[in-house]
Amino acid sequence: MEKKTVNYTLKSAADHDEDDDDLVDHPKVPGWFSEHCPIWPGQAHFLKVEKILFQGRSEYQSMMVFQSSAYGKVFVLDGALQLTEKDECAYQEMITHLPLCSIQNPNKVLLIGGGDGGILREISRHASVQQIDICEIDTMLIDVYKKYFPGIAIGYEDPRVTLHVKDGNAFIKSVPEGTYDAIIVDAFDPIRPDHELHEGPFFELVAKALRPGGVMCIQAESIWLPSLDIEHLTAKCSQKFKGSVDYAWTIVPAYPSGVIGFLLCSTEGQFVDFRNPVNPLDPNNNMGSNGVGTISADDEGTKQQVNIQEEDDIIDH
Amino acid sequence: MEKKTVNYTLKSAADHDEDDDDLVDHPKVPGWFSEHCPIWPGQAHFLKVEKILFQGRSEYQSMMVFQSSAYGKVFVLDGALQLTEKDECAYQEMITHLPLCSIQNPNKVLLIGGGDGGILREISRHASVQQIDICEIDTMLIDVYKKYFPGIAIGYEDPRVTLHVKDGNAFIKSVPEGTYDAIIVDAFDPIRPDHELHEGPFFELVAKALRPGGVMCIQAESIWLPSLDIEHLTAKCSQKFKGSVDYAWTIVPAYPSGVIGFLLCSTEGQFVDFRNPVNPLDPNNNMGSNGVGTISADDEGTKQQVNIQEEDDIIDH
Repeated sequence: MEKKTVNYTLKSAADHDEDDDDLVDHPKVPGWFSEHCPIWPGQAHFLKVEKILFQGRSEYQSMMVFQSSAYGKVFVLDGALQLTEKDECAYQEMITHLPLCSIQNPNKVLLIGGGDGGILREISRHASVQQIDICEIDTMLIDVYKKYFPGIAIGYEDPRVTLHVKDGNAFIKSVPEGTYDAIIVDAFDPIRPDHELHEGPFFELVAKALRPGGVMCIQAESIWLPSLDIEHLTAKCSQKFKGSVDYAWTIVPAYPSGVIGFLLCSTEGQFVDFRNPVNPLDPNNNMGSNGVGTISADDEGTKQQVNIQEEDDIIDH
Repeated sequence: MEKKTVNYTLKSAADHDEDDDDLVDHPKVPGWFSEHCPIWPGQAHFLKVEKILFQGRSEYQSMMVFQSSAYGKVFVLDGALQLTEKDECAYQEMITHLPLCSIQNPNKVLLIGGGDGGILREISRHASVQQIDICEIDTMLIDVYKKYFPGIAIGYEDPRVTLHVKDGNAFIKSVPEGTYDAIIVDAFDPIRPDHELHEGPFFELVAKALRPGGVMCIQAESIWLPSLDIEHLTAKCSQKFKGSVDYAWTIVPAYPSGVIGFLLCSTEGQFVDFRNPVNPLDPNNNMGSNGVGTISADDEGTKQQVNIQEEDDIIDH
């Protein structure tokens, strides 16, 4: 789960290592964590920190895990709250099932970002899916999630999952045209260095990687944020995807404004009505939440390690 | 709008007059306001205060109005955030139109609490309504809203409105059986001193005041609050109202968890399906938001002062 629209410069109560110039207008409270959210100034949501469980920095980003009083364990990425145990389900379920329930029998699914594994866990609940590719560049992030959030990282245990350790932009370029039924983008800014996602070629590459009538779902901010221009966004995406475009939202109390939105797009082909799901989720298929135990007898029957394809193994087209 | 489930003891940055014993576990930041929300400890949502516009105390409660950076003007009652200019519409519209759109041609409507006037503004948008009674005990609260939130208190300008200055419990006892088509309760704790709303006789009195197949809507907390037991609540209400019972929610970012719920009940009589409105709101009838200008030519044609019936004028039955 990567929820970054800007370079957050937020700090937790435990961060003391950088200068505080950008925090002049943002309150700090010892023993409490808060994002400094420059996209909606003048407010701050604080969580009480019971214990800091992990702090570290990978090649790409800084990470912190803490035990909160109110939301269970919390994962912080470059100072931005990524997810909490209490409400991660609301986000992971919606970003996954909105696209996957909108088409018949999704088979091949790509996840870009989403290194925590929660979306993998949810994709796993669709019995029709045979191939789940995830492109996540930061293996340290995955390791931290596996250690501190096993109920989320459990998504990696599904034998259908293949991890591609690569930059999302480079990976999407390498995908043969029409490969996937669904692509979920859990990184509003999946390409480094930062750039404008909607104006660049990324969406066109995603559209190209989808089969006709395939679907994409991407996190698209809160409807309460003044910076969000849904009309502009959907118009842009209509041009690029050439199928249907819709906007959805759900409630995630730990996020700013308590709401997060999703942009849903389908490519030219069979019409996709995102408001009326055609592929109901089997309520008995809870593989994601209780491990491989409910994989049907038709599956290989062995729990296998997640397949990892290192960056160099990918052939760029 | 009275959003109280407990005795909030919250303090703003501007409150210095009481002891701070109960704030040991709650952060304070100079120049920022936050509720101290004992029903969900370990988190705090802060709003930056640009200017305090009003502070005062009526016979019943303390009030504060401040200009925030992020949410426009904010009204605080006994330390609890009641509403903000930015997101009040989300609350007022849902608590009003959920019940009023669920029945054909609502005629007589009672509002208990809701002294700010925003729900009156929304009720006014229903052309079928001929009588709007509001029971609000605190006239100072009304005056403060009229001065600082004219776009909300505009609801009082509708000539169909009669204000009853009385305690909500006493008033509901005085209502003849079967009087109202709809009753909206905008005070989770409408009776002072504090008591258990769901266990006491209040709901039975509301049901009695409704016609057969009439509807009630009351604020019913956030689905994210651990204290909310929707099953228990709806079971209790099924017993008391004997019609249909449902639970709804909407997003109000300034409230704890960003979500607020509503309990909807109908009395024995014609079945009410709260999920499929039968009385669509006329989108051209925006009387509430732009004053009396759009009252139809069939109305009296004169803007009149709100009718006020003082407490002593009410005959107790």
